[in-house]
Amino acid sequence: MARPRRSEHTRQALLDLGVSIFSEKGYHGTGIKEILDAAQVPKGSFYNFFDSKEDFAVKIIEHYGKDLLEKMDQAQDRFNQLSAADLLRIYSLASLAYIEEREYRSTCLLGTLAAEIASSSNLCRATIQNYQDAWLKRIRCLVERGQKDGSIRQDVEADTLALLYWNQWQGSLLQLKVAQNPEQTRKTLDALLDVLYSPEQKEH
Amino acid sequence: MARPRRSEHTRQALLDLGVSIFSEKGYHGTGIKEILDAAQVPKGSFYNFFDSKEDFAVKIIEHYGKDLLEKMDQAQDRFNQLSAADLLRIYSLASLAYIEEREYRSTCLLGTLAAEIASSSNLCRATIQNYQDAWLKRIRCLVERGQKDGSIRQDVEADTLALLYWNQWQGSLLQLKVAQNPEQTRKTLDALLDVLYSPEQKEH
Repeated sequence: MARPRRSEHTRQALLDLGVSIFSEKGYHGTGIKEILDAAQVPKGSFYNFFDSKEDFAVKIIEHYGKDLLEKMDQAQDRFNQLSAADLLRIYSLASLAYIEEREYRSTCLLGTLAAEIASSSNLCRATIQNYQDAWLKRIRCLVERGQKDGSIRQDVEADTLALLYWNQWQGSLLQLKVAQNPEQTRKTLDALLDVLYSPEQKEH
Repeated sequence: MARPRRSEHTRQALLDLGVSIFSEKGYHGTGIKEILDAAQVPKGSFYNFFDSKEDFAVKIIEHYGKDLLEKMDQAQDRFNQLSAADLLRIYSLASLAYIEEREYRSTCLLGTLAAEIASSSNLCRATIQNYQDAWLKRIRCLVERGQKDGSIRQDVEADTLALLYWNQWQGSLLQLKVAQNPEQTRKTLDALLDVLYSPEQKEH
């Protein structure tokens, strides 16, 4: 197998740093120079890799989006003996632990950039939408599995439950950045999965 | 009653414009000059009103937060014959209509600034948290009322249902910025209020 060219390594390093710095500081709060300095790449060579800051942001969103989907697929393979509801739970709890470690400074790049630049960059908005749709599809398949394995209620369409799950998760991440209280997030997650999404209703 | 001084009018105009421009373009994406130009205020006089851009953002968050709470209180007074679940619904649908009119360019200032600057400005984070807490308290009181009037299930704590409601709403706003599809938002809102939060469960 041919070794990847040095420039491909540099490109990947810029994308990795871009994910981490854009997640924390946002699009306008991040200077390209800061990323180039951190990657020890000379300023002039940025345009060898990317057409513009906006193009860089699009590539960062793609880089992050693909990586997250791969991690989700790996988790599904690894824990395929779990019920769908428990799989959703452990995936969310693992993400939460990761965010806690980073002291809530960065949460989800898709949500962070959606809030800041979805209105001003149509390219970024469309790229976020692609990965959001791919996520929603994954969650919908999990919900459908849960409706079959008896871990998720059947009287609401899988599409709607998947979107609600995504929305409450993205909202929880905003809430985490502000209140920095993961106990609240765990509590709402448990209520959602153990009670609201459960087919076994406690009230009649 | 004494007429407010001219400078107070200018300050209010700057805050109103700040809410609208910060909501759309974010903190770092907005230049102070743009707001001063729009308000026809000379550049030099900004510091007569605010200590810094960060101080301006704090005052904008307060201005927006107070206004929203007042509107919520007015809606509660005006529609006090409705069930709590229906009050939550009409309030959310009215906000949604307002966002649609503005073509999803601006949604909620608290969520937008939380995503962008909660990690970098502790002053802004703490101010957002104050208003978020005030909101959560209002929603919790409504949920408690709903648990009494029979429109909201009683087997999950009001605190948890209130936080879930807030989180799914903030997540819906991000989703709206990206997918620009209010039908999805209405559908998840209906599923939440008519099924998941309802004490009358359709499955056993």
